Amino acid sequence: MKLYEALAQEIEDLVSRQALRPGDRLPSVRQQQARRGVSPATVFQAYYLLEARGVIESRPRSGYYVARRRLPDDAPPEPHVSQPAFDAAVVDVSALVFDVLGAARNRSAIPFGSAFPSPLLFPLERLARETASAMRRLDPWSTVADLAPGNDALRRQIALRYQLDGAPVPPDDIVITNGAMEALNLCLQAVTRPGDAVLVESPAFYAALQALERLGLRAVEVATDPRDGMEIGALAQALERHRPAACWLMTSFQNPLGCLMPAGKKQAVVELLARHQVPLIEDDVYGELYFGARRPALAKRYDQHGLVMHCGSFSKCLAPGFRIGWASPGRHAKAVERLKLSTSLACAMPSQLALAGYLAQGGYDRHLRQLRSALEAQRDAMLMAVARHFPAGTRATRPEGGYFLWVELPAGADALALQRAALERGISIAPGPMFSARREFGNCLRLNYGHLWNAELEDAMAVLGRLARA
Amino acid sequence: MKLYEALAQEIEDLVSRQALRPGDRLPSVRQQQARRGVSPATVFQAYYLLEARGVIESRPRSGYYVARRRLPDDAPPEPHVSQPAFDAAVVDVSALVFDVLGAARNRSAIPFGSAFPSPLLFPLERLARETASAMRRLDPWSTVADLAPGNDALRRQIALRYQLDGAPVPPDDIVITNGAMEALNLCLQAVTRPGDAVLVESPAFYAALQALERLGLRAVEVATDPRDGMEIGALAQALERHRPAACWLMTSFQNPLGCLMPAGKKQAVVELLARHQVPLIEDDVYGELYFGARRPALAKRYDQHGLVMHCGSFSKCLAPGFRIGWASPGRHAKAVERLKLSTSLACAMPSQLALAGYLAQGGYDRHLRQLRSALEAQRDAMLMAVARHFPAGTRATRPEGGYFLWVELPAGADALALQRAALERGISIAPGPMFSARREFGNCLRLNYGHLWNAELEDAMAVLGRLARA
Repeated sequence: MKLYEALAQEIEDLVSRQALRPGDRLPSVRQQQARRGVSPATVFQAYYLLEARGVIESRPRSGYYVARRRLPDDAPPEPHVSQPAFDAAVVDVSALVFDVLGAARNRSAIPFGSAFPSPLLFPLERLARETASAMRRLDPWSTVADLAPGNDALRRQIALRYQLDGAPVPPDDIVITNGAMEALNLCLQAVTRPGDAVLVESPAFYAALQALERLGLRAVEVATDPRDGMEIGALAQALERHRPAACWLMTSFQNPLGCLMPAGKKQAVVELLARHQVPLIEDDVYGELYFGARRPALAKRYDQHGLVMHCGSFSKCLAPGFRIGWASPGRHAKAVERLKLSTSLACAMPSQLALAGYLAQGGYDRHLRQLRSALEAQRDAMLMAVARHFPAGTRATRPEGGYFLWVELPAGADALALQRAALERGISIAPGPMFSARREFGNCLRLNYGHLWNAELEDAMAVLGRLARA
Repeated sequence: MKLYEALAQEIEDLVSRQALRPGDRLPSVRQQQARRGVSPATVFQAYYLLEARGVIESRPRSGYYVARRRLPDDAPPEPHVSQPAFDAAVVDVSALVFDVLGAARNRSAIPFGSAFPSPLLFPLERLARETASAMRRLDPWSTVADLAPGNDALRRQIALRYQLDGAPVPPDDIVITNGAMEALNLCLQAVTRPGDAVLVESPAFYAALQALERLGLRAVEVATDPRDGMEIGALAQALERHRPAACWLMTSFQNPLGCLMPAGKKQAVVELLARHQVPLIEDDVYGELYFGARRPALAKRYDQHGLVMHCGSFSKCLAPGFRIGWASPGRHAKAVERLKLSTSLACAMPSQLALAGYLAQGGYDRHLRQLRSALEAQRDAMLMAVARHFPAGTRATRPEGGYFLWVELPAGADALALQRAALERGISIAPGPMFSARREFGNCLRLNYGHLWNAELEDAMAVLGRLARA
């Protein structure tokens, strides 16, 4: 074996043992030369070989990285574009959602139906230290002054990240909220009146449907591609026909499909909505959980008219339980701030101060890299388990981020019956009808792959597969 | 001077130097005998003398306590019962409220217009330690499991206090919220539909008016006695005429009047509302801030039908900035829990765990005693300042708890003009029209006495008095 082949083998072994993970940067040629004592030519040859094998990939002006995993050829096929009814619907989905969520809260159940990734994936100890430290330094008057729109230092940190994402937002236009859920609700309330129509994806995140239901709004479900999001043509038609008050989209790694709207499509959606003067509520809580080379663009980035109300959160990517999210509502910032003041006044100081401290210290991006890598490996494991255990004819999405898989069982399967049967065996799932105002998607389910994969989860997938066959 | 006279004088000196404060317990006769070396007869004689002078008071089976301060005879007279219009009104008060609150947030202003007491009155260091300790012990899975209705340990602590107050509530019927503001909003939402009428006090807490405005409800303002709260006769008439969906009352130390509804009247209100099947939203955020011998009764205590939705908070009496309140919504508990889930999902874990830890450790009641004593002294100082500096014909309430004084200037005075003029001189106040759907109370203001009294505050009262005269 030549020297460069040996070097390549060494690195490939590290990758296969997961000591190096997808997205990790390889040592530079200079580092290999200095510490490993090999010539630049040897390093280059080794890296070229690994690149040819698909193990690593080069990024211009940045170096070599462990390549993203390729899905095996026997992954299940993807579902088709949805075909929702064209009418607006009064929403009545809450009771079903609460039933399912209530059942899924059993701690001992296998959490495929959960809305959260494993809490073990988060830097809770570091956050505990930041919380303690922030509370020791607390200025008593800040407990009175830090009402909506929220703590200054935290809003500056969030503004910094908007700047890095190419969508600069002044800190004054950011409203800190009790998680993204409150941000989305306040944005929706700021731009709608009871009876208005609101465009949502099909399938849609059930909390969006519940928000419409609570505010007396009608849902217009728009055809959505499980790979790249809401269909532009269907959106244009719905805008003409329904004159909606708002459009609520999860632009990156939508819940439940996991679809990622490409940047160009995001831009087209933003421009189309702007021509109709319709605000876009951009639910972007999974945007940081990308498996690709860089963070997906924000639709907000293409906003020329202050019509994109971007909502984010730390709950899914950094600090579950801290309940800190935010809205960047563009021209409606003042209205959202006032709604926040009059519905819940302010957000918890300990949470706000701890996160402001954490973000200022650095380490967030390192944590995110580990989190993404873990989620990507878990996605693969779950996709393969679907292929192995589920009935022939099953389809599944191939999410490029987030932690949800959308599974379409063969026609005739009953996801609600499956949910009940699985729960009896200690397994929670989220059945498709939760994600539709008309309770469609009766043969679909959302599975959560946000937990460290192990034999117990694999067994649970086998049980689900058997139940689905029956 | 006889021995018992000398002993009495010693104690009276301690009281006048505030070493002993209203509500503090005096050493027992046995303690005086053992440590001070005087006979029981001497102690009794001294205590009888002090009791006769009104310095101390005896409580059956409990001992002697420093008496509550009596207001001097030259305190301003009290305002009359309000006489609101009898019609329901569409509310449009938010813009005014936000203008006034925005102006009052200037940290350097004298905070007579503030809604909060001084943060220096709270055990922030102790809370910081509890927060740090709770975060170190955090169970990662609790960040997923502690959704609405909230952290178990905290709900058990709150249930304990309900039991002590004679209104037992199972922990399962308590929903933790983002401050009382969210609790009240969720309760209101659970029992109303847009267009419904809701009964409120006159004047009413502006956040109640804003909540009605946001939900498209109509306000029926009911005549209210500045000493003992809403008038029963007026309430009965309003129930007959308006068939309201709910009644929202601050039963103890109402904001802005400071009035305390006596126990018997609370019971009468609860029974009257129950006969009409109208839920009572009981906003009780100031109930712990009583200056009397014991906590005022909860209206909830008289609830036979699960129709009283009691809302409390730690923001005003223990932990400002932690944003932890709760609702105990009786028969509507499930509905409120579900609304909480779908509007903001859960409350911040660091705040919930820290408060659960604090309450379990003990020390809350000791803190409350100090807080009440400070607030009572500050009330006296402010009342006397009103008497000294404000124009003849000024009236003022005499709150027996809380930290708000309601001042009625002579007819023709313009509180909104006064607010603007005061702000230019660095003094915030809350003008009367904020507290009325029809912007009545044009010659009234709410003053906050929740801050340690000093020469600067006294001077600011003199400035206000001069401006009011002009």
